[in-house]
This record gives sequence, structure tokens and C-alpha cells, in this order.
Amino acid sequence: MTPHTPIYLDNAATTRCSAAAARAVEHHLRTAYGNPSSAHPLGAAAAEVLEATRRCVQTSVQARRARVVFTSGGTEANNLALMGAASAHGRRHLLVSTIEHDSVRQPAEALARAGFELEWIRVDRDGRIDAAEVVERVRPDTALVCVQHGNNEIGTLQPIAAIARGVHDRNRRTIVHVDAVQSLAWERLDFEGWGLDSLSISGHKIQGPKGVGALVLRENLVLEPRVHGGGQEGGLRSGTENVPGIAGLAAALEEVLTHRSTRRPQVEALRDRLAHGIAERVPDAHRHTPASDTLPHLLSIAFPGVTGEVLLHHLEAEGIYVSTGSACHASSAGGSHVLKAIGASPPDTRSTLRFSISHETRVDEIERVLAVLPEAVAELRLLEA
Amino acid sequence: MTPHTPIYLDNAATTRCSAAAARAVEHHLRTAYGNPSSAHPLGAAAAEVLEATRRCVQTSVQARRARVVFTSGGTEANNLALMGAASAHGRRHLLVSTIEHDSVRQPAEALARAGFELEWIRVDRDGRIDAAEVVERVRPDTALVCVQHGNNEIGTLQPIAAIARGVHDRNRRTIVHVDAVQSLAWERLDFEGWGLDSLSISGHKIQGPKGVGALVLRENLVLEPRVHGGGQEGGLRSGTENVPGIAGLAAALEEVLTHRSTRRPQVEALRDRLAHGIAERVPDAHRHTPASDTLPHLLSIAFPGVTGEVLLHHLEAEGIYVSTGSACHASSAGGSHVLKAIGASPPDTRSTLRFSISHETRVDEIERVLAVLPEAVAELRLLEA
Repeated sequence: MTPHTPIYLDNAATTRCSAAAARAVEHHLRTAYGNPSSAHPLGAAAAEVLEATRRCVQTSVQARRARVVFTSGGTEANNLALMGAASAHGRRHLLVSTIEHDSVRQPAEALARAGFELEWIRVDRDGRIDAAEVVERVRPDTALVCVQHGNNEIGTLQPIAAIARGVHDRNRRTIVHVDAVQSLAWERLDFEGWGLDSLSISGHKIQGPKGVGALVLRENLVLEPRVHGGGQEGGLRSGTENVPGIAGLAAALEEVLTHRSTRRPQVEALRDRLAHGIAERVPDAHRHTPASDTLPHLLSIAFPGVTGEVLLHHLEAEGIYVSTGSACHASSAGGSHVLKAIGASPPDTRSTLRFSISHETRVDEIERVLAVLPEAVAELRLLEA
Repeated sequence: MTPHTPIYLDNAATTRCSAAAARAVEHHLRTAYGNPSSAHPLGAAAAEVLEATRRCVQTSVQARRARVVFTSGGTEANNLALMGAASAHGRRHLLVSTIEHDSVRQPAEALARAGFELEWIRVDRDGRIDAAEVVERVRPDTALVCVQHGNNEIGTLQPIAAIARGVHDRNRRTIVHVDAVQSLAWERLDFEGWGLDSLSISGHKIQGPKGVGALVLRENLVLEPRVHGGGQEGGLRSGTENVPGIAGLAAALEEVLTHRSTRRPQVEALRDRLAHGIAERVPDAHRHTPASDTLPHLLSIAFPGVTGEVLLHHLEAEGIYVSTGSACHASSAGGSHVLKAIGASPPDTRSTLRFSISHETRVDEIERVLAVLPEAVAELRLLEA
């Protein structure tokens, strides 16, 4: 089909696991394979992997006094944060932004069906939340405010510190939950400095393994567990811990901490090169990703006159792998809720592609995309006209 | 400390991952790393891994028409089976055996706190359930009957077919859930032949990876999801699937299917050699594991006059790793609920060790345990007297 090795520009959906993370997984599958709850040395060694990774998570998000609860991924972490907190406290009012990931939106909707009062926090055309508006809507009975740090479709970063400070000034009992799954690889996170109550991360978005994530919790924050059993993770999440995955998460986090400051500008430069190249070659392409204060690796663009999915498969035939938006099924049925939230027109929404870069992406890969894309768009415009 | 490589006899807690399963995990971390929800070929390949593993699970448990929902492990599968089924149907009565794993007992208790009527199914001194007694207690409003196939502490197998048939004859709407986590590696499972509604399995108990399990569901059985989000797994369990873990599960299942019939008698012979050797050398040792109809790899024995935990650490110093019971914390606080259910005395409970063998266990390892154990028991009896 194509003489090229595939160019993978879908890193927001999932990343290739790093060699170091894969080695850590392998070691704990084959050699250090104990159950952390076992009393013998093989169990104790596994338990120490959990504690070492907890410290690593604490360091990564600057949460030295926080609890770290390991989960099967970002989705479970977000579910535990919302549903676990909502059922543990008496308050019934929820504030959730309109551009949250489905793993926040859907638990919020489930809570609304169970009788909670769910209000959506609007965003502007850049997908940005107005901190003052959120704060104004906090009530005495507001249980939770949920805001994603960096959006997974268009990349917008939110003013988390201002939101958290304002919310807590107004109601110190309101829990501020931040989904940092997409931003962890690229942005400095400051759980304690920002004054957060809970924060979700995921392994497979940061070159770690799939099947592992964590919920970081302010000391003394009370949650109802969602999974009952042997009482692992301080009773908050039962089930034998995914020790190999957790060891892989630690290895991936260490690489993030070591390389983030050099990888971020490198990836951002590639993203900007792609964006400018597209703007030159497809002048009427419409960029959803804001010009500033965004994640460095994401670019969401509408190509008027073509169907995103058709363009995706056209690029795929050229060995270029992208997505039309979030990898999740649920949102795609009715079109992206993120693009809707920023006021994109239905035709623009249908014409959108998301490019997501990693530190493994090369300049020549970006050049290849820029060589193929304009012709593909022109060709499809003729076909679809 | 010891000149010997550790002798690992805690395979009921967790197993060493097989080389084939570890290779499958590695391949999907580093090479075939797509997100199954992505539309490009790397995503499609990952989605195909899910479907191939589903077929593999169906074959392994003889459930050709059943749904297979991947979870993070046996605990999550049991939680989904109980809490998902209980909230999806109007019936309020639950029948759960007293020797279930905590991942069944604790969700059952959580449902009881939420207003369900929970009744416990008793077992005899062998830990065996009387099928007729269960059937007799089924009522028109019985939502669920939960029975573990093979017990994880003492190894007792239950008459699953008789229970399921009887329950359904009396109330065809009652869901029969079976926890087969501990038995999958050793016993033939016949989901459809037995007429089950749901069944849980786990990767790391069968030489597969930690962090993956599955719930097998009768076609058309309605459950409420416990994790909300992108709608993966037919809407029953959101979150990016643990593709490497799922690929590892498939590899482990294939080995189980290929080797079970030869490994089972081999492991059982080692268990019996250990049991008879202990009976000869420590004549007053009291065996909890029944003489027949048990899992082949488990041996639970009380050594009167010694504390199980002290004996465990004594053996550990000799490089022999065993457990005092289940690896789970919760149950150990008040002593094993399984030993209590079979009427073991508190001193017997405190004196109990669980040995659990794998196909990797060698005869000379069993001989070494038999050489060390009697002296250790004698020595500790003097110390503890």
C-alpha cells in the first residue's frame, strides 16, 4: 500500500510504551511477580514497588502529602473521583465543564440520573473556562467542581489555580477535581500549590502501559470506594494491584520528569510547523486549537468541504494515522461535544481532524504530512462536491 | 540467608507470568500499541486482539454465545456481576455462600447496606454447599445466587451444575454467578452446560498478567455499568482497554487449554505427596482441605501449637514462601472467614498455613519443604509453649 513506515499522529489516543517502562513491566511479570498482600519477601518487594511509585506520582504532580490510589486507568480514576466523592458527602450540586472527557461527563450524567443537580460550566470559543464565572456559580451545597487541565481534543489549558483558589475561597468544602490525563506528559502540575482536592492521571498517555492510572487525593479527603473486596489501596480500591503496570507507570513518570522540559518545546515546534504548513497550503482550513495556552502536542483543524473520516482513511492509505477527535466511541455518535461546546458549526465538526504528536515524531514525518495533506483535501473536495 | 532459590508455594495468591504471556504483553506495549477505539489500522489491530481474546475466553469456559467484558481483574469482575446485576433488576434478595472471596462478600455487604436482603448459604465441614438447601431458599424475589467454583483457601469444589439447574428450575429469573478465578487453571468449566448467568476469571491466577480479568455474561443479561465513560466493552465497562494485558490473558488461556489435562494430575500428585509427608511427620497436623473434590494445587493445614504467621516467617527464612490464607488484608484482621465457615476452632485458624502449588513446582522442592517443616514446627512448639 505505502512504502513508508506508518506516521503515528494519534498520541492523544494512546502512546507507544517506552523501552524503560516496558522493561519494568516485564521484570514484574516474570521475576518480581509477588502479590503485594503476601507476607513473604516476594510480596514485600511488590508492596515496595507500590510505595515507590506512590512517591513518584506525588513528586510528579507536586503532592507530597497526598494519597495516591492506583486504578486501572484515567477513566476509573475519574469515576472514583466523581462518584466516590458524591456519595461520601451530603451535598447535591455538581459543576462540570462542557469540554470534559467522557470519563468525567458520563459519571456526572449518572449522578444527575441518581438525583444530583448537575450544572455545566461553559467555555469560550477557545474552549477556555472563565474562572470568575465558575466561582460565582459555587453554592453552599456544591459538592464538586470538575475541570480538565488540558483538553484532549483541542488542547486548551485551563486556569486551574485561579479556579481552585476562587472555588475554595467561596466554599472550602467544595471538592475541586482535575483530570490531568492529557496534560501530565507536557505540563508542570502543582497539586498542592494549586490547592486541588483530587487529580487523575493515566499510564498509557505518557508512554507508560495501558491498564494503569492513579487518583491523587488530598489528605483526609473521604471517598466511598467503587470496587469492594480485599481492602487494597487503603480500602479505596480493592483487587490485586497491577504491579507490573504500576512499575511501568513509575518508569514512564521518571522519563517525563527528566525530559519534559526539553521535549515540550520540541513537540510544540513540530505542532506549530504542522499548523503553519497547513495554514499556507490549505488557507481555508480552520484551526480549533487556540493560538496560546494549549497543550503542545495537539492540533485540531477543520478542512471545510471534506468529511473528516474520509480524509482520515485517505491519509491512512498514505501511512499517516490521525483521528477525527477523541478515540472514544460515545461522543462520536452525536459529533464531538468539545467542538460543539466551542461553537463549531456542524459542517466544521464533521470536517475535523486531530493530529497529536509525541517526542518520537520526526520533522520529516511532519513534512510528509504537509506534502500529502493538501492534495488529499483537494481531491476529496472534488469528490465530495 | 539460604543457599536455595526460593520455593514459591503461594500460587493461589498470584502466579509467575508465563514466557508466552509476557511476550504477548511486551508486543502490545512496544509494537502493536494502538487504542482499540482508533479508526486507523493500529487501532483496528488492537480491536482485533480484544475480539480474538473474547473468543479465547468463550472457548476456555465453554460459553460460545456469551458476552465477555474485560475488567481490571477478578475483583472488578465480581463487583460488576453483583452490583451491576443487583441495580439492573428490581429483585432485592441475595443468596451468597459463606466461603466466597472478599471480592464477592464485600459487594454483597455493600448491597445489604443499600437495602438488599442478604442471606448467607452455609457450607459443611468440607466447605461444601448443599445444592438442595440453596434451591430451597430461592424465592420469587431472589436476584442473585453467588457461589465460588473452587475455594481459594481450602480448595473445595462446589456442585455448580446442580446448584444452577436447581435454582433456575425454581426461579428462572434468578441470576447464578460463579467466581471461577481460582479454578480456571485446573478445572473444566462449562458455562453453557451448567446454565450459568455470569462467571468471573482473572489473568494473574493462571500464569497471565496482573491487571486483567473478565466477566462472562449470558447473552441478553442486563447489567448496569459501574464505570462510565467512552462506552467501551459494549457500554458495560468504559476506559481504554488494557490491550497488552488482554493479549497476555489470551496467551495464558491457550496454555491452560493445552496443558491443563497433563498439569492437573502432576500438581495434584505433588500436593498429595506434601499432604501425606506432613501427615507422617506432624501426625497431629489438621488438614482443612477435603480429601476429594478439591482444586489440585491447594493444601490448607493447621499445625496445632504454633502460630501460622510465625511458622510462615520461619519457612521464609529457609527460602520457602507460603501464606496463612488468602492474600487479602480484610479477611485476615478477624481471622479467615473460610475457616470460620467450616467450623475450624480459633486456635486451629491461627495455626493454619496454605500451600499452593503450580506446574513449575518440582518434586525436590516438596521434599525440601518436608525436610524443613517438621523441625520448624517442633522448634516453634517449644518456643510458643
